[in-house]
Order: sequence, then C-alpha cells, then structure tokens
Amino acid sequence: MTNSSADRYFEDYVPGAMREYGKVSLSEAEMIDFAKKYDPQEFHTDPEKAATGPYGGLIASGWHTVVVTMRLLVDKFLSSASSLGSPGIDELRWLAPVRPGDELTVWVKVVDSRRSNSKPDRGLVHSIAEVFNQNGVKVMSMKAISVIALRDASA
Amino acid sequence: MTNSSADRYFEDYVPGAMREYGKVSLSEAEMIDFAKKYDPQEFHTDPEKAATGPYGGLIASGWHTVVVTMRLLVDKFLSSASSLGSPGIDELRWLAPVRPGDELTVWVKVVDSRRSNSKPDRGLVHSIAEVFNQNGVKVMSMKAISVIALRDASA
Repeated sequence: MTNSSADRYFEDYVPGAMREYGKVSLSEAEMIDFAKKYDPQEFHTDPEKAATGPYGGLIASGWHTVVVTMRLLVDKFLSSASSLGSPGIDELRWLAPVRPGDELTVWVKVVDSRRSNSKPDRGLVHSIAEVFNQNGVKVMSMKAISVIALRDASA
Repeated sequence: MTNSSADRYFEDYVPGAMREYGKVSLSEAEMIDFAKKYDPQEFHTDPEKAATGPYGGLIASGWHTVVVTMRLLVDKFLSSASSLGSPGIDELRWLAPVRPGDELTVWVKVVDSRRSNSKPDRGLVHSIAEVFNQNGVKVMSMKAISVIALRDASA
C-alpha cells in the first residue's frame, strides 16, 4: 500500500497491509453535542446522571466513535480517486467505554480483496479497523467492506 | 411490547414484536453538513461532482442514515428506564442510496432475547431494523444487540 492515499487504487489494498492513524480525541462538549442529536441517552448527554449510571460517568455514543474513525479512514485510508462507497459492515463491536479526552488510535488492516466479476473495473476490499485508547485498551472493532476502483481495469 | 417506551423493560421485548417508526427526511444541506464532518467523500459533500459520480447525484453518508435511525430507536424503541447500552452490531447493510428529501420509515423487529447468566438483572435483546424509502425500497438493514434491564430481576 502506498503511503499517500491520494492515488490509491484497488491494486494497492493488499491483504495483510496495515496502517496506524490518529490520534483523535473527543471532548465532553463534543460528546454531548453529538449524542443530543443522534443518541440522547443520559449516559451520553448528562454528566451528572451519567455519574450514577451504568458506566460511572459520561461516555461517548458508540456511533460517535464510529464516525470519527470513519473520518480518519476517509482522510487517510480511502482515496477520493477510487472509493466508490460501501455495501456495509460485517461486524461492529463496542468493547470498552470512550470517555472525554481519551486519545484514540486506529489500526486498520486489509483482510481480503476480491475483484468484482460483474463489474471488472472495481473490487471489494474487506478490512478491519481496531480502535485503542491511550492505555492500549481496545475500545472498538469494525469489519468493513469497501468498493474500490481498479487503477488498471484492463489488467 | 407496550406502546409507550417510557417504562419498557427486558420483559417487554418479546421475539416477534415489530414496530414502525418515522418518517424522517434529510435535506441536501443536512447531508452535506454531516458528511463534511464525518465522511467527506465527494458523492456526499459536493452536488456538482456527485452528479457525474458513481451515484449520479448526491447521496447521504450511510452513517448519516444510521444515526437518524438510531435517534428514532432511542426515542421510540429503547427506554431510558432500562437501556444499558450495546455491545455492538452484527451486520449493517446499505442497500440503496438515500437522496435529499427521501422519506424514511424504520421497521424494527425483536429477533431474540436472552437473560444474562452473569448479570441476572439484565438481558440481551437482538433486533433488526430495516429502513425503507417512500417508494418502498429497502435502503438499509441493521442487526443490533441491546443490553436491557429487567423490570423484575427476582422473577
């Protein structure tokens, strides 16, 4: 895999390739703002009630962790030259709480890649993204599928 | 399942129970705003470039469809009295594009529920949420797992 994602294509997503991205961090205010819009549960939106709730304090919506991970993948792993979207996610796991100020690192590994039979100008890339906090605790994992254009569809 | 989610507990999430929620709609401006933050790919952020892109026009980030679905589920399906979070999603599929102004309806069905052995005051509820547009086209499906408190843990 080339180091720049600017002209990365299907051929560059070789199974076994691995990259580290980050760190990213979410403030309490950002967590509350996101959760009030999309996931208004008290342990995501209300520090006082969260303190006596199931997580003993405010935690990020799991979807917030997902979308900041997605932002890193769009900026660093995918390429605007070749990314054609995604049919979905095979498995997503929230493994440990993400708290305000946690510094998150994303490891992404290409697991499999397969050229499309029906549309030979593209292929499916299966990857797994694992998110760790500053203590090395894995907080999230996500098995994603991406549709990626070939650099040279005539090959 | 009771019709009000205000005091819904594990016992109320009976396999086979089904509910319809919505409709919700996303404007082009909302789609662009979300995608610029979290998923800045041109087919989500730039109507002109999207017009000549793989989807022939601007489409919502799949994650945007997820989080507006989540908002409906938090408001209508889950209960602040009993929702304890989620270990993850088993499968998420983006099946058709969501375009500005589409009116989305969410069907959610309880697939399985199982009381926890290790923590008998709660259980795991497996559900599937399916999102349809105004033409009856299924645009997304999501198999979710929820941790839900029991109403009566002594039973």
